[in-house]
Amino acid sequence: MNDPLQAYLADARSRQLAELMDWLRIPSISALPAHREDVHRAATWLADHLRQIGLEHVSVIPSDTHPLVRADWLHAGPDKPTVLIYGHFDVQPVDPLEEWETPPFEPTIKAGPHGEDLYARGASDDKGQIFIHVKAVEALLATTGRLPVNVKFIVEGEEEYGGRTIQEYVTRHVDELAADVALISDSHMLTPNQPAILYGLRGMWSAQVTVTGPAHDLHSGSYGGAIHNANQALCELLAALHDRHGHITVPGFYEQVRDLSPEERAALAQVPYGEAEILAETGAPALYGEPEFTVVERIGARPTLEINGMWGGFTGDGFKTVIPAQAHAKISCRLVPHQDPDRIEALVTDYLKRLAPPTIQVEVRTYHKYQPFLTPPDLPAMRAAARACRRTFGTDPVFMLEGGGIPIVSVFQEELQLPVVLLGFGLPDDNLHAPNEKFHLPNFYRGIATSIALLEELAAA
Amino acid sequence: MNDPLQAYLADARSRQLAELMDWLRIPSISALPAHREDVHRAATWLADHLRQIGLEHVSVIPSDTHPLVRADWLHAGPDKPTVLIYGHFDVQPVDPLEEWETPPFEPTIKAGPHGEDLYARGASDDKGQIFIHVKAVEALLATTGRLPVNVKFIVEGEEEYGGRTIQEYVTRHVDELAADVALISDSHMLTPNQPAILYGLRGMWSAQVTVTGPAHDLHSGSYGGAIHNANQALCELLAALHDRHGHITVPGFYEQVRDLSPEERAALAQVPYGEAEILAETGAPALYGEPEFTVVERIGARPTLEINGMWGGFTGDGFKTVIPAQAHAKISCRLVPHQDPDRIEALVTDYLKRLAPPTIQVEVRTYHKYQPFLTPPDLPAMRAAARACRRTFGTDPVFMLEGGGIPIVSVFQEELQLPVVLLGFGLPDDNLHAPNEKFHLPNFYRGIATSIALLEELAAA
Repeated sequence: MNDPLQAYLADARSRQLAELMDWLRIPSISALPAHREDVHRAATWLADHLRQIGLEHVSVIPSDTHPLVRADWLHAGPDKPTVLIYGHFDVQPVDPLEEWETPPFEPTIKAGPHGEDLYARGASDDKGQIFIHVKAVEALLATTGRLPVNVKFIVEGEEEYGGRTIQEYVTRHVDELAADVALISDSHMLTPNQPAILYGLRGMWSAQVTVTGPAHDLHSGSYGGAIHNANQALCELLAALHDRHGHITVPGFYEQVRDLSPEERAALAQVPYGEAEILAETGAPALYGEPEFTVVERIGARPTLEINGMWGGFTGDGFKTVIPAQAHAKISCRLVPHQDPDRIEALVTDYLKRLAPPTIQVEVRTYHKYQPFLTPPDLPAMRAAARACRRTFGTDPVFMLEGGGIPIVSVFQEELQLPVVLLGFGLPDDNLHAPNEKFHLPNFYRGIATSIALLEELAAA
Repeated sequence: MNDPLQAYLADARSRQLAELMDWLRIPSISALPAHREDVHRAATWLADHLRQIGLEHVSVIPSDTHPLVRADWLHAGPDKPTVLIYGHFDVQPVDPLEEWETPPFEPTIKAGPHGEDLYARGASDDKGQIFIHVKAVEALLATTGRLPVNVKFIVEGEEEYGGRTIQEYVTRHVDELAADVALISDSHMLTPNQPAILYGLRGMWSAQVTVTGPAHDLHSGSYGGAIHNANQALCELLAALHDRHGHITVPGFYEQVRDLSPEERAALAQVPYGEAEILAETGAPALYGEPEFTVVERIGARPTLEINGMWGGFTGDGFKTVIPAQAHAKISCRLVPHQDPDRIEALVTDYLKRLAPPTIQVEVRTYHKYQPFLTPPDLPAMRAAARACRRTFGTDPVFMLEGGGIPIVSVFQEELQLPVVLLGFGLPDDNLHAPNEKFHLPNFYRGIATSIALLEELAAA
């Protein structure tokens, strides 16, 4: 990094932070209708800001739900690659509000064990992280008058609310969004000094399962012992989906699961995360899951089937000796390459129906499906990201598999045919989707430097 | 029955019905605090009525919750037995109100397939049934100036709300309530022409089961596959409590269960109730339960374990891919002689704790316990009741085992050392605890005649 740029970044720190705090004050909760106008304000704030720092074709694109923000700078020349930068300016709801130590929309700086943290809803997920790239572009334009690559921004306002608008927009604007690589910062590093690049994300199939026994709730005194209890039948069905070692028992479930090569297992074994860390983070009494895989492999490289919610019968205070007519569960499978959500839907549904005894009926209604994602860590764009990390942090990044999903990633990969670089600057304890969300401020500043380095590396690649 | 008594009853019908309808208009819902005053009004109404027809020592006994009503007539002479008549004047809540075809507290007479039915909350359970005995006593006193036996009434106002007050009262007033036999009408006949006497009731142990995994809800993307999901663990525990033939698998669960003799099985086989009837009543797709027992035996003579309610994780609209920290179930066992609720509590609790893997913790908190009840059908009081049925209905009663429980029965048996005659005049389709509760009016009038006959038979026994 040249000296004027370094001097610029050093001078700009408190202004950059103040700007981010301004943006964080807008309670852009996409899931709550009462905040619809706030989501729009957050979009306008970003668009104004992008215009101000020198981006072009800036627009707030309305939709039935929440708007997108688009902008670009395309003067690097036709021989230079185009980078599509994605992020989101909507945030999760804040309940339970009483568990916040500082108000979620009054950004507050506190000293932490490794430096200052900024507490606010959206600080890490994802306003703080997308703002890293905005500030990188600003610094380059301000000090050199240009960017080393062509850049397009597409920033959405409903990632926490299904993300349908951007998925439709990308599908319909393939030419407008054409690029050579997509860059997303909506994930986390391992520690403040250990950068991480994701090369895989799990996909998803989720559904609601309903078991129906008798036509109406029954008195257990009058019918107990001769009519199958829907709660019991649901438990019997769901309990049959795992063996006692945590393997999923649905026939064919693992058929399409990619085998891990010895080299990949060796690399994943380098990720400094295991039983001690997960037990400390979760407070669970013991580790669970497939004994032949490590914790990192179970979370990143193996598919799961979870019962996210279930309910049936009398759940109030006191007691009602009812035999429920219906019982319900929300289940979801995290999928890994090369599992196909459609195939998993068919396998699990068929298995549940096959298991169902004649005493009840079972219905499976799909809620959501998206593909798992995998990208080779040795793609040129990934290698460029690794070099950028090394330049800024002085250490090689860890290549990780992430257990969660980012649905837009598969859309970029499939619709725009782009490699996707997932370079996150959050930390595992950032309290995403929970009270007291924070962003580690040293990561913010180093993130800006890393983003500048990455744009330079991509130009040279 | 003598002619003046028959003439009196024929003349009194419409007045007796009008009085019952008056009482039914009082919405004495014991479970809802808003109706506390109504429960008291129903008690006062009954006490006034009992005084008016000639009973003595009538009092409304207050309590912390709802009052009891007590009265007696003790002039039959020391050589005549004393009959303790029990019932309750409180009623179940009425929700869902929109499913009532006529307002629950505006008693409405409608023609049914076998005669007129009276629709109102409490019509059958239990105002209508206890009022049978009130009207029998009234008719005898009005026509003969006396009763053939000594009579004590104890009528409670919180049978549908735990019944604690009367249990404590009985325990503390053993001498005051001393009698030779207890008479309860809070059950049902098989058909309008087939009287039934219960000789057994199931007991109860109920508890709330809580499974705890991690210390807080987790994101299934970040932890799925390596932490045991509390919903899944609860399903696995509860599914292990029955085999696929409906037998309870808790070791020792059946140890204290009384064997049915061939004679008793032959007698129970005469009860005209089976697969066709239960499927028609419940709308269930198929019969469930222990194949080596008939439907009547499964419901009356076999113990059960039901999951009355369960819940865990995200149960709202939409989807949240959470790994829940806790999952809960309300379970209850219907017990048969000679099962001991304390022993069942220990067996089920121990078994659940033994089944629990190290990945979770399980807690079992008892909610309610009461003994099963069994009385020999050949006791003199039972034989007197059978003769009374034959005199009124022209047919012998069926001796049945009832799947539900009446907690006060064991209290009468154990604290007062009384045989208990359970002679019900409801019908299986009376919609107890449900919308459109009704009472079959021919049963009301024949019930009064049967009660008179029973008091006479007990005097002669």
